Amino acid sequence: MSMESPAVIALIPSEAGGPSWRFGSVKFARPLRETELKIRMVSTGICHTDIFLSSLPPGTLDITYPKVMGHEGAGYVEEVGSAVSVANVGDPVVLSYTFCQSCKLCKAGQESYCLDFDRNVAGDASVFQTSQGERVAGKFFGQSSFSAFSIVDEASVVNVKDKVTAPEELKLLSPLGCGFLTGAGAVLHSAKPSSDDIVLITGVGAVGFGAIMAAKNLGCRRIIAVDRVPGRLELAKQLGASDILDTSTIESASFAERISAIVDGERISFSVETTGVPTLITSVIQALGKRGKHIQLGLPRPGSEITLPIFDVINFQKIIEPGCMGGAPAAELVPQLIQWWRDGSFPFQKLIQFFDAKDVLTAMQAMEDGTTIKPVLVW
Amino acid sequence: MSMESPAVIALIPSEAGGPSWRFGSVKFARPLRETELKIRMVSTGICHTDIFLSSLPPGTLDITYPKVMGHEGAGYVEEVGSAVSVANVGDPVVLSYTFCQSCKLCKAGQESYCLDFDRNVAGDASVFQTSQGERVAGKFFGQSSFSAFSIVDEASVVNVKDKVTAPEELKLLSPLGCGFLTGAGAVLHSAKPSSDDIVLITGVGAVGFGAIMAAKNLGCRRIIAVDRVPGRLELAKQLGASDILDTSTIESASFAERISAIVDGERISFSVETTGVPTLITSVIQALGKRGKHIQLGLPRPGSEITLPIFDVINFQKIIEPGCMGGAPAAELVPQLIQWWRDGSFPFQKLIQFFDAKDVLTAMQAMEDGTTIKPVLVW
Repeated sequence: MSMESPAVIALIPSEAGGPSWRFGSVKFARPLRETELKIRMVSTGICHTDIFLSSLPPGTLDITYPKVMGHEGAGYVEEVGSAVSVANVGDPVVLSYTFCQSCKLCKAGQESYCLDFDRNVAGDASVFQTSQGERVAGKFFGQSSFSAFSIVDEASVVNVKDKVTAPEELKLLSPLGCGFLTGAGAVLHSAKPSSDDIVLITGVGAVGFGAIMAAKNLGCRRIIAVDRVPGRLELAKQLGASDILDTSTIESASFAERISAIVDGERISFSVETTGVPTLITSVIQALGKRGKHIQLGLPRPGSEITLPIFDVINFQKIIEPGCMGGAPAAELVPQLIQWWRDGSFPFQKLIQFFDAKDVLTAMQAMEDGTTIKPVLVW
Repeated sequence: MSMESPAVIALIPSEAGGPSWRFGSVKFARPLRETELKIRMVSTGICHTDIFLSSLPPGTLDITYPKVMGHEGAGYVEEVGSAVSVANVGDPVVLSYTFCQSCKLCKAGQESYCLDFDRNVAGDASVFQTSQGERVAGKFFGQSSFSAFSIVDEASVVNVKDKVTAPEELKLLSPLGCGFLTGAGAVLHSAKPSSDDIVLITGVGAVGFGAIMAAKNLGCRRIIAVDRVPGRLELAKQLGASDILDTSTIESASFAERISAIVDGERISFSVETTGVPTLITSVIQALGKRGKHIQLGLPRPGSEITLPIFDVINFQKIIEPGCMGGAPAAELVPQLIQWWRDGSFPFQKLIQFFDAKDVLTAMQAMEDGTTIKPVLVW
């Protein structure tokens, strides 16, 4: 492609630690490889992981700059490599994550725990260049969908040609590739609660909402949503939470006690933690009931440690299980979420706000300050 | 029963923290209840848990003194309560743990994680008395098998009438009720390794040996045994370990590095930690590979904490899962272990040393100083 593609480019982050993004344009720096597709993006959700992973210094987790982030893309196939079988030119696709397809875990269908999952974060420095010829890394999560056109790994592609009927629908579906999938999949495939279970969900961004809606669909007896933004908690109640706790007003030491009071001392079977805040992780594990399972989805800063009361954890036989990308193949989860959405039981559209791609900084700010749950860039 | 039964009685532990056991006698303080059996003990294994749970101050975990410990009993049924169906008078039985049979987890077949598992530790203060009329708690793990005769919960009984042919065999089988079952069951039901997995097992007492023999029977590619007693490590090699590490000679900070060197940087899929030593728990979790599962079987002192590198645990998607009593019904595991033993692939008899019950303190000392793996008291 010699044409310029509008794109959001992540530069070396500021000393203060925030990401440094600018809206500009890129060109492809090389031809398509045989297992890649060229995608014309319709929309891309912004996820905290885009912000988190473009806030780290170069070299951390093999990250390079400049780079095109974006890992919740949806669009149409423009061109396919010679070995691609997942989709044909013209097919609508939702993009998720890439995986090696050859490690023990990929072969066992656990591709979200691919032993070479790091390739999602590192990306591929050969994909893009600026008009001045500077290389710009692509294939973040195999897709780098913060670009109107991108080169995408076949593994990242979920073909939805039998699931969507119009571009307006496809535009809505992009966030199903990561945030909502991660939360819903954790409940469906890691927790697997039954209707008499009580589930505790901390942090009600897109991941938390995915978990809440999935827990409601599985009929969980009580669903406790925790956040520090009152507006989000009200939304959580509308979308399935039976109980809410605003942590902006409580001491972290009293967290387990407050949760216990909410459920009258009944056992919490599962906790789904989406914030990655170390002190909250400890509190949630404490609040969890005997032989409960703590599913950790939020990632703290590199190097973070917690003090774990190991006697209590063992004595109460609590399981701690990190989750990633829903714990099941995206090709299985994304169609399920679309079906739930059509049935009206996964109304994630209520959590979305569209932004023109050039307004990416406004969109990011809207997510950071809590005024929108899921900003989606339209290309 | 008006007759006196020889028994090991645990008294309030010494200030120094060790157990205070004396060999004496007890009488039953009440008649058999409808779901109880009277058992004439043939033998009882001594487990570290007997020592650990009689070293804690009264009140901790609802423990009372004096008490009859012992939770690896084997014997013959002398009398059955009116509602008992598990065995008839004269049947040989192996004793394990009790469970409520009515909680959510018991009903789901996860009786080793019974929500009222504490009943095993607390026991029942009404069972025994001394000849002077002082009450002595019984039904530790539903059995209190450090007594020649005991009242036992039906739930603790595994009927082995189709599995053993003579009292001499039954005498050998008592340790299958806890230690070997806990280790072997953790591998069979929590790890479930395949033949290309590498398994790390720390602490090679009875629990560790159960894990080693089970991992060998499942064909694990490499089995690394870790201990600080060289003689145990030599035994571990004889019974299935492919590699050994003597931690008495290394710094704990270099543990993960040493393990990595042993396996040439290959991924450890499962770790089975049986010592409960907090610093070792941290080191083992560090040594575990991506999406590995750490199965924690050893229990540290109440109140123990560890510093957990939570970023690494989440980034490498490591699962931390405490295990208890093999994670499957004893009625299923004990017969399986007996079958393996008959087949020659679970040679736990090599790890046993018999002691006359009156020599209990010698037996306990032999376990503590590492000269025997599993002392078994003969009644």
